[in-house]
Amino acid sequence: MIPIDDTPLCRDGKVLILAYDHGLEHGPVDFEGVPESADPERTFEAATHPAVTSVAVQKGIAEAYYPSYEDDVDLLAKLNGTSNLWMGEPDSAVNCSVEYAAELGASSVGFTVYGGSNHEIEMVEEFREAQEAAREHGMAVVMWSYPRGQGLKNDTKPSTISYAARLALELGADVAKVKHPGSREAMEDAVRMAGRTKVVMSGGSKTSDRAFLESVKQTIDAGGKGLAVGRNVWQRENPERILDALEAVIFEEATVDEALEAAD
Amino acid sequence: MIPIDDTPLCRDGKVLILAYDHGLEHGPVDFEGVPESADPERTFEAATHPAVTSVAVQKGIAEAYYPSYEDDVDLLAKLNGTSNLWMGEPDSAVNCSVEYAAELGASSVGFTVYGGSNHEIEMVEEFREAQEAAREHGMAVVMWSYPRGQGLKNDTKPSTISYAARLALELGADVAKVKHPGSREAMEDAVRMAGRTKVVMSGGSKTSDRAFLESVKQTIDAGGKGLAVGRNVWQRENPERILDALEAVIFEEATVDEALEAAD
Amino acid sequence: MIPIDDTPLCRDGKVLILAYDHGLEHGPVDFEGVPESADPERTFEAATHPAVTSVAVQKGIAEAYYPSYEDDVDLLAKLNGTSNLWMGEPDSAVNCSVEYAAELGASSVGFTVYGGSNHEIEMVEEFREAQEAAREHGMAVVMWSYPRGQGLKNDTKPSTISYAARLALELGADVAKVKHPGSREAMEDAVRMAGRTKVVMSGGSKTSDRAFLESVKQTIDAGGKGLAVGRNVWQRENPERILDALEAVIFEEATVDEALEAAD
Amino acid sequence: MIPIDDTPLCRDGKVLILAYDHGLEHGPVDFEGVPESADPERTFEAATHPAVTSVAVQKGIAEAYYPSYEDDVDLLAKLNGTSNLWMGEPDSAVNCSVEYAAELGASSVGFTVYGGSNHEIEMVEEFREAQEAAREHGMAVVMWSYPRGQGLKNDTKPSTISYAARLALELGADVAKVKHPGSREAMEDAVRMAGRTKVVMSGGSKTSDRAFLESVKQTIDAGGKGLAVGRNVWQRENPERILDALEAVIFEEATVDEALEAAD
Amino acid sequence: MIPIDDTPLCRDGKVLILAYDHGLEHGPVDFEGVPESADPERTFEAATHPAVTSVAVQKGIAEAYYPSYEDDVDLLAKLNGTSNLWMGEPDSAVNCSVEYAAELGASSVGFTVYGGSNHEIEMVEEFREAQEAAREHGMAVVMWSYPRGQGLKNDTKPSTISYAARLALELGADVAKVKHPGSREAMEDAVRMAGRTKVVMSGGSKTSDRAFLESVKQTIDAGGKGLAVGRNVWQRENPERILDALEAVIFEEATVDEALEAAD
Repeated sequence: MIPIDDTPLCRDGKVLILAYDHGLEHGPVDFEGVPESADPERTFEAATHPAVTSVAVQKGIAEAYYPSYEDDVDLLAKLNGTSNLWMGEPDSAVNCSVEYAAELGASSVGFTVYGGSNHEIEMVEEFREAQEAAREHGMAVVMWSYPRGQGLKNDTKPSTISYAARLALELGADVAKVKHPGSREAMEDAVRMAGRTKVVMSGGSKTSDRAFLESVKQTIDAGGKGLAVGRNVWQRENPERILDALEAVIFEEATVDEALEAAD
Repeated sequence: MIPIDDTPLCRDGKVLILAYDHGLEHGPVDFEGVPESADPERTFEAATHPAVTSVAVQKGIAEAYYPSYEDDVDLLAKLNGTSNLWMGEPDSAVNCSVEYAAELGASSVGFTVYGGSNHEIEMVEEFREAQEAAREHGMAVVMWSYPRGQGLKNDTKPSTISYAARLALELGADVAKVKHPGSREAMEDAVRMAGRTKVVMSGGSKTSDRAFLESVKQTIDAGGKGLAVGRNVWQRENPERILDALEAVIFEEATVDEALEAAD
Repeated sequence: MIPIDDTPLCRDGKVLILAYDHGLEHGPVDFEGVPESADPERTFEAATHPAVTSVAVQKGIAEAYYPSYEDDVDLLAKLNGTSNLWMGEPDSAVNCSVEYAAELGASSVGFTVYGGSNHEIEMVEEFREAQEAAREHGMAVVMWSYPRGQGLKNDTKPSTISYAARLALELGADVAKVKHPGSREAMEDAVRMAGRTKVVMSGGSKTSDRAFLESVKQTIDAGGKGLAVGRNVWQRENPERILDALEAVIFEEATVDEALEAAD
Repeated sequence: MIPIDDTPLCRDGKVLILAYDHGLEHGPVDFEGVPESADPERTFEAATHPAVTSVAVQKGIAEAYYPSYEDDVDLLAKLNGTSNLWMGEPDSAVNCSVEYAAELGASSVGFTVYGGSNHEIEMVEEFREAQEAAREHGMAVVMWSYPRGQGLKNDTKPSTISYAARLALELGADVAKVKHPGSREAMEDAVRMAGRTKVVMSGGSKTSDRAFLESVKQTIDAGGKGLAVGRNVWQRENPERILDALEAVIFEEATVDEALEAAD
Repeated sequence: MIPIDDTPLCRDGKVLILAYDHGLEHGPVDFEGVPESADPERTFEAATHPAVTSVAVQKGIAEAYYPSYEDDVDLLAKLNGTSNLWMGEPDSAVNCSVEYAAELGASSVGFTVYGGSNHEIEMVEEFREAQEAAREHGMAVVMWSYPRGQGLKNDTKPSTISYAARLALELGADVAKVKHPGSREAMEDAVRMAGRTKVVMSGGSKTSDRAFLESVKQTIDAGGKGLAVGRNVWQRENPERILDALEAVIFEEATVDEALEAAD
């Protein structure tokens, strides 16, 4: 962990990452509901919204689309990922080097670690290399901290999420992206375990505006520092509307009702 | 993805790769119908046809034959491959480095990724190294994107081909070589998923002139940028004739009938 | 082994390492009894006690908290570790390089080796790299020498602990952290096997003040050079009190009774 | 493949490699019939025969004996090998680097690839490194191309030998050492598949003078460029006699009868 | 193999290595009979005996004790080893680099290769790196050549020992440490197979003075160049006495009776 409040990843110490690596992780199926969401430009456009601190994409998307947006959007390069065509014990290929991410203009990097997987050892060692290289480039490091694998039956129970948050702190991430553990108390515990590492909630699959904003609000109230969200933004017909609401909740201390109203 | 329209791999933004790595991948059996096709010179001669933007061969063929053709033919070095003497879960040996490909005079590189294979992780990491090295040399990158392996029962169904095309975009390929998914609609979907990455159809095993040209035409009509073809050219008695027809379909907006006629 | 008496890891040739890597190794469960123990600051504060020669933490904790304490606390960077979410044959991910540990200000490094594990070969080779790199930086090396794995039914029997101590000597550790083998005689044997490598007792899970101090006293009397302790310090309501007592036993030749009294 | 006719490996475009790596590959059992054959000097002496273009040995034999023969014998350093004490799926340890082979004075290198083995991928990648390093040193590359392993029931059938020859071409070997496929037609096919890569017959286990010379003659008549032979030379009481005959067959277009006569 | 007669490892072309890596390989159990043998100083003292050409220890022992003896004792750094807490298919961790061995003052290195083990390939490749690095430093290389593993039922039968000796020659060792194969004839065969590589007998477990000396005498008579011995020296109450006798047998052509008498 290093101080990152002055980097583009943060606004007033808070974080809103717009994640768009689903084409790799989940495949085209995620774009079915809103077909135009398959076009990365649409997400980059959404990322120009002032609520968004960074957009998180894989190397190829960054190469092809980021040059057109580099003045308006901050880039977080996601360094690893796996297709869901593959069915093995959770693992993730490192498909971009930190050096190349820096060349692409990224100001921070993202890295998935599946704690508890039979590949935990290898992933943590790959994370070490990425984290130390990121330090050399002065880049912030966001860990997608997702315990998963053979030994884990329930990967969103509170104790697992708290452990996930702690792993991010212990291993040197500046930001821990974790799933919502289901209650404010549980999120508070995760935040406490992460110490000086910022905790952000993982947006997850698409839900209603209210349900989604309430989980975000709960995260903020629990001391979380924001959100890394994908489908709950770009699977909506109007990404801007939910981003308005998120801005209110995350950066302006609005209630969910106020946020929903403001976004109308 | 980088802009490649000005590289020798493209002509008017379109691509026609003449692939000749079958001696490694399939072995001598592919040369049985037309015995003289075993001689790489015949394919290099065919590659001097103006329709061909590049010839794709393995390192050894490039070393031995390309020096005689370097003024007339553009070289795409295929960097990995496997014999079919081997029967394991799909994988491919990296048998040529990017640095050596550049020394051989290649202007672009080709790399197979078997998404979904138990070796996906490893192959994607090898692709990373090749892709980033290619960027240092300013070389275009073509991904042979072939989902295959234990978990994949049908590797040409539309959703798999669309995913294959998307993988190429997400991982940073400039061109995605995919199998034809069976219909124009399905190819359109693949093209849409590939975004700014050019999609080219994989020629596949030999069929009739008309059937082959119709699938190429369908690819072009669907927004595909061309073809990477091997057997459907050099397993024909007269490769030049089909190349004439392909030139008409790919570069001159001809119908299949017009193309067949022009080639007679 | 190199002479380390003049390094900050030692005081009068003795060692008291305050270990706080449990958030990684065991997870938040270790903090439940004393919730404020989850905050690394509390342990760094405890480490300012004159009895503590070094604090042992993982990279992330060092990055985030050590800068505030570098004038008052000596840092031992623990270089490997594993979450207990993972259930495989004992192994440990190298999550920090020696070079980075040096940049963080560490004067020594810690490394776990599970002798007898199916990963022994690999861990010993990783230890080699860390040990030789530490020598280049003039850093002391502490081995967490914990025989463990498929072939070991009882990992605290005297002969195993003696072997553990010997492994540390043979492989080039300056300090061997071993479990208490149950008796003074057994600890004497371990000390004898370690030759010029200093043996320190591993604190283990929390026990009563008296039981804990007696095992420490026994270690010192057996020729051990101190202690690497975590839970028996920071799982207590008042870490300072037990550190007072430890100081008396380890550095001042006090009896357990004297130490308990002094600490009141 | 590079032009190698002007290197010491060739004489008039032909090749006769005297191979003596059997002490590693087969062990002392190969020396039983002619006990003095265990002494490498005897083979180096034989290699001074003008018929022999190069002697192929492992690193240790080269280190110990080649300095005495470097003026009279050309050295091919065999870079990998395995004892037959080991019984696993075919594989071969790389026991000598190209750099070290060059220091030893080798003008060419030899490398075994077991196409079809479960280790094919790994062996081909090791071959890549060796081949590219050899190119940097301007050394010729000879592939011992021996399809073998789980999936191959008959490793000398014509189609397998032809594939073996093609692999050598595709992967960048200058010379392909293959087993005799049993007929002139089959050897012609292998030669054709190898293109500009020279095919040499593997000598195999000891047979009668006539049978052996006939297979060599057949290879030459089929367009093969010579022979890599071990046991059929040094397991004979008089290696010189058979070398005389081989010289006649390979370099002087003699018939087997003429060669046998000349050697008497 | 390189000429090593002028290095400290040899005296009059003969070798007597005092090996003391048992604390790693076998553990404290080897020191039980003579408890003071656990102290490395005792072995270093014994190594000052003029019969001893080098002492073979692991890195940690060398680091901690060799500085006190560097004027009187020559150091052979054993580069790999494994605890017997581990029960897998024979393998050995490389726990010291050649570079570091050179820094420690070693004039030669030792390396175990388990020919026939499922780890043979990997061990031979590690040996390559060590051997070539040793050459750069002008250090002699001793191979502990111990065929062992799944496929080997009897690892001391003559043909296995002969193969072991040959492996050392083929792979580039200057000295082959092999087990005694049971008869003078068998040892002669091993010596013959090793060519210019010196064969030394492995001392093995402790036996009577006479039995031990007779096996050494037999080795010398068979053309062996000496001995690498551990337990048969330092497990004796009086190591000096047996070293006197060994000096007589190895360097002074004494009979066993003469040697036993001289040592009294």
